Amino acid sequence: MEDQQEQASPAVRKRIQDSFDQQGLMSHLGARITHIRPGRVHIVLQARPEVTQQHGYIHAGATSAIADTAGGYAALTLFDDESEVLTVEYKINLLAPAAGDHLEAIGTVLKTGRTLTVCQLEVYGVQVDGARKLVANGQQTLIRVNRPAA
Amino acid sequence: MEDQQEQASPAVRKRIQDSFDQQGLMSHLGARITHIRPGRVHIVLQARPEVTQQHGYIHAGATSAIADTAGGYAALTLFDDESEVLTVEYKINLLAPAAGDHLEAIGTVLKTGRTLTVCQLEVYGVQVDGARKLVANGQQTLIRVNRPAA
Amino acid sequence: MEDQQEQASPAVRKRIQDSFDQQGLMSHLGARITHIRPGRVHIVLQARPEVTQQHGYIHAGATSAIADTAGGYAALTLFDDESEVLTVEYKINLLAPAAGDHLEAIGTVLKTGRTLTVCQLEVYGVQVDGARKLVANGQQTLIRVNRPAA
Amino acid sequence: MEDQQEQASPAVRKRIQDSFDQQGLMSHLGARITHIRPGRVHIVLQARPEVTQQHGYIHAGATSAIADTAGGYAALTLFDDESEVLTVEYKINLLAPAAGDHLEAIGTVLKTGRTLTVCQLEVYGVQVDGARKLVANGQQTLIRVNRPAA
Repeated sequence: MEDQQEQASPAVRKRIQDSFDQQGLMSHLGARITHIRPGRVHIVLQARPEVTQQHGYIHAGATSAIADTAGGYAALTLFDDESEVLTVEYKINLLAPAAGDHLEAIGTVLKTGRTLTVCQLEVYGVQVDGARKLVANGQQTLIRVNRPAA
Repeated sequence: MEDQQEQASPAVRKRIQDSFDQQGLMSHLGARITHIRPGRVHIVLQARPEVTQQHGYIHAGATSAIADTAGGYAALTLFDDESEVLTVEYKINLLAPAAGDHLEAIGTVLKTGRTLTVCQLEVYGVQVDGARKLVANGQQTLIRVNRPAA
Repeated sequence: MEDQQEQASPAVRKRIQDSFDQQGLMSHLGARITHIRPGRVHIVLQARPEVTQQHGYIHAGATSAIADTAGGYAALTLFDDESEVLTVEYKINLLAPAAGDHLEAIGTVLKTGRTLTVCQLEVYGVQVDGARKLVANGQQTLIRVNRPAA
Repeated sequence: MEDQQEQASPAVRKRIQDSFDQQGLMSHLGARITHIRPGRVHIVLQARPEVTQQHGYIHAGATSAIADTAGGYAALTLFDDESEVLTVEYKINLLAPAAGDHLEAIGTVLKTGRTLTVCQLEVYGVQVDGARKLVANGQQTLIRVNRPAA
């Protein structure tokens, strides 16, 4: 119940899910959105051979890809239909090997302005038993642009 | 001829190619190494629907993944068989939509020390006619660790 | 009382204060340490003409200097007498004009390892009436090195 | 002669020097602008006790302050009288102890757009005999805003 109240409106969730579904990379990696709240989005990536680096951990590139995407959609929850957001830049520290059953990336808006939005990016490695460990932490700058007319 | 002289030694190239081939993500994305020089590695990623974001450009996550990987292997060219490098962190600016026939990421060692190495990361969008545009630019910190005994 | 318990030990506080007092820049800027807790250090900088940029706000360079220093000492609280920490790199977003009576920078250790430590950096603009606003947010990587024998 | 041709126009140089002169921090640190070219600005900082960290090297905060300022003015050379630039964020790696007679920071525009500009930041430690060493390297994002009417 409480969890439901925290969710973004159905219209916002639909808009973000639709956009996410158009990202070929997210589908190809096997990532999916699990929470869409105002100013915060979670994305989960299952560990599997297609997303590994040379030691069998999840590749920093895959870790970063879901972190960047979570931050972008976290920002988008705060804007109207006419807006898009683009990543200007991000910085990410890889704190520990990205191990576990899956990764959970959480993008959280830290500050939003007319033009720029800054998000915090966190990625947790989650074991089958639910144990969680912070494996990456970052910071991202996004720019709001008007959506091109259809 | 000149180009051949610039290449890393066959042993270094083999070591890096072998490591790259073990990265499930690089294979899954369709990325391949095209140059291995001392302190500089190039990786190419073909544009295709599996690596896009919602507007059909190559996803910042894919762009970053090849940039990070190019930097890591650029550092590794400078170390011996007993060393591995891990990404500590990187920062990347997405300067323009990642459009074109393919992307070419270039990782270049800027400074190397006993423990840490800093690389510059560049990613170019390359058209079918060979026209190139810088689409991303970044900076990466790596740490050298001893390779675990087999 | 509670606040006192949170403080670092007198030995740690003395070690950090002594080191801080040797930083010519901090003294020249008029910065001072206000809290030294395990894994967290606060530094305050009074607004005055000597630390401004061209519009009269506190200069991003001064904001960054106290943020970087707060992070470095936050890391140092966790190490023994034989250790020093050096900043490897940091990234900082300037979120709002650095206005107010003074700035308060807070460095907080996010993750510490044998060699590297990652800190979160926050800087608040504080008004005379105590109102606070986040004006900068960053992330920093530090390396622990052995202190040279005296 | 050649060097003179490379310079920005007298009007641009005056505008930037005037703005720099209003920065209390730059004056307090003892920094001065030495070159103003289109898309590139150099700032020099003399080593002296007022800008040191605890080991007597130039403080990362001072190094960053001149790097950030050089990048900001490099961007400003490309815009008209009605524009100001603000630092959105920057990331800097401290590559070596900032030692020498003085530091020279060089900000270079990498990419400029309607709203955002990205600069490369380099800082060299320069010995009395002119020997130079790269001591810091960074990347900065700036935003162009309209100058408030006087």
